[in-house]
Amino acid sequence: MSVKILSGHPVAEKHKQLIGKRIDLLKKENIVPTLAAILVGDDPASKIYVNTKHKIFTKHNCKSIVYEKNSVITESDLISFIDSLNLDSNIHGILVQLPLPKHLDEKKILSSIDPNKDVDGFHPINVGKILIGTPNFIPCTPYGCLEILKFYKINVRSKHVVILGRSNIVGKPLMALLSQKFEVGNATVTICHTGTPDLKLYTRIADIIIVAIGIPLFLKSNMVKNGVDIIDVGINRLKDDSKKGYRIVGDVDYEDIIGKVNSITPVPGGVGPMTITMLLSNTVLAAERKLLKET
Amino acid sequence: MSVKILSGHPVAEKHKQLIGKRIDLLKKENIVPTLAAILVGDDPASKIYVNTKHKIFTKHNCKSIVYEKNSVITESDLISFIDSLNLDSNIHGILVQLPLPKHLDEKKILSSIDPNKDVDGFHPINVGKILIGTPNFIPCTPYGCLEILKFYKINVRSKHVVILGRSNIVGKPLMALLSQKFEVGNATVTICHTGTPDLKLYTRIADIIIVAIGIPLFLKSNMVKNGVDIIDVGINRLKDDSKKGYRIVGDVDYEDIIGKVNSITPVPGGVGPMTITMLLSNTVLAAERKLLKET
Repeated sequence: MSVKILSGHPVAEKHKQLIGKRIDLLKKENIVPTLAAILVGDDPASKIYVNTKHKIFTKHNCKSIVYEKNSVITESDLISFIDSLNLDSNIHGILVQLPLPKHLDEKKILSSIDPNKDVDGFHPINVGKILIGTPNFIPCTPYGCLEILKFYKINVRSKHVVILGRSNIVGKPLMALLSQKFEVGNATVTICHTGTPDLKLYTRIADIIIVAIGIPLFLKSNMVKNGVDIIDVGINRLKDDSKKGYRIVGDVDYEDIIGKVNSITPVPGGVGPMTITMLLSNTVLAAERKLLKET
Repeated sequence: MSVKILSGHPVAEKHKQLIGKRIDLLKKENIVPTLAAILVGDDPASKIYVNTKHKIFTKHNCKSIVYEKNSVITESDLISFIDSLNLDSNIHGILVQLPLPKHLDEKKILSSIDPNKDVDGFHPINVGKILIGTPNFIPCTPYGCLEILKFYKINVRSKHVVILGRSNIVGKPLMALLSQKFEVGNATVTICHTGTPDLKLYTRIADIIIVAIGIPLFLKSNMVKNGVDIIDVGINRLKDDSKKGYRIVGDVDYEDIIGKVNSITPVPGGVGPMTITMLLSNTVLAAERKLLKET
């Protein structure tokens, strides 16, 4: 059986080309899609994420403004600051890099972002719109998963999709998206999590498995049926003897499972490249919508 | 095997007693929980629903004001009217009886209700809060299902719950609720719908089945395993030779399946009596929250 490797790079590339054309059209109207990224504290991983986003935005003739805030900022000060960005007509998208320091209520902070600038799709009203079936912004990682499935023509309609992990960022929005009558949807969806006593019962009958649990090399060949399609959302550091001292692996034991699958996303290079691309797409969408409202 | 019949009446009764005590406490503060129910047009079934709610509210020393609107009301007039109720401090809960005439955008109308008065739990922000895991108001029918499971000690934790039907009113909120780490939750949840080619594949491995598809007598004994627990949300009229010319049946073929189940809700008398009770509960909750905010 030949295995289809679902690289995210050509999917991201195709999207970036389309997005580029949309950015050019906006430019003719003197609009530069602009993202405000708020970084609270000095978590090194968060800094890397924000910088990567910044580079991609700049590279694609969009603007990204990074606001670094001291980790001791109060909740009300942060919300006031977000409010000022909500009112700033030059800002199209607002992103608060997670996780936040513990004294800040993440849900309260995310709820303070104008839903029409919520390009991460984490505001409860945007989450609700997904479940109701009328999405405003689709969160970037789930969005990337859907676009990979679409690009490689992995049909999800009428299929049994098993999702491992119920995070607000990946698992739950994917459950909401894939069970709807959407183009990439209409699947029978099962959501498994830490409360599922025997995951194999579900993964073994799945046509498609999406794993987003943050446990390196978790999904093994004895847990899946032949010909399964797998989307691996995990990005984990695994210590090894290399110079760097680690390698990046997914939640799927790729080497172990590869002989049994029809298709699988690699890690790195699968879902990863899609996430930022979809953030770019959502920010351009926000700018387009604003223009449409004004004209 | 003795079958447990999950009558909704004792569950509703227990809740009404608790709610009664809360209403008495509010009375001491000169507050009468008040529901504004908007009925657009003259659909006879809708009239019956609104009247039944009105009677229950009145019986329990709450207030229900029914606003009848002509079926030709414009969207903007209806939204303006809802706005006036949003601002009216004597109104704690607002309900728009569905379905609405076709010229009115249901989602737009429901979104115009103040989320803190949205006792039906249909506003996108309240739907989103459920999926995120921090519910504001739980929609009444799913809420009733959860309370029946709790009352009869049908454990859902670590169980496989299969939901048939993906409506915004029942199936989707239940999927969101039961998959969370809630008291009645932490289940592995599968959602099936018209896009599921062979439902039996899922219903036969389910520990608990919740049916909300609106097809009379759909679920049969050959579709379930022995000892399953069943919540039947369906309320259908089936023509017969009786004086009335019909009888009320659920989505489950009760007579056919009864020998195989561990427990089952009857229809009528199962989930039905719970729905209005939870509406009462949500309205009292809205009044309590308003009082708490003011003191």
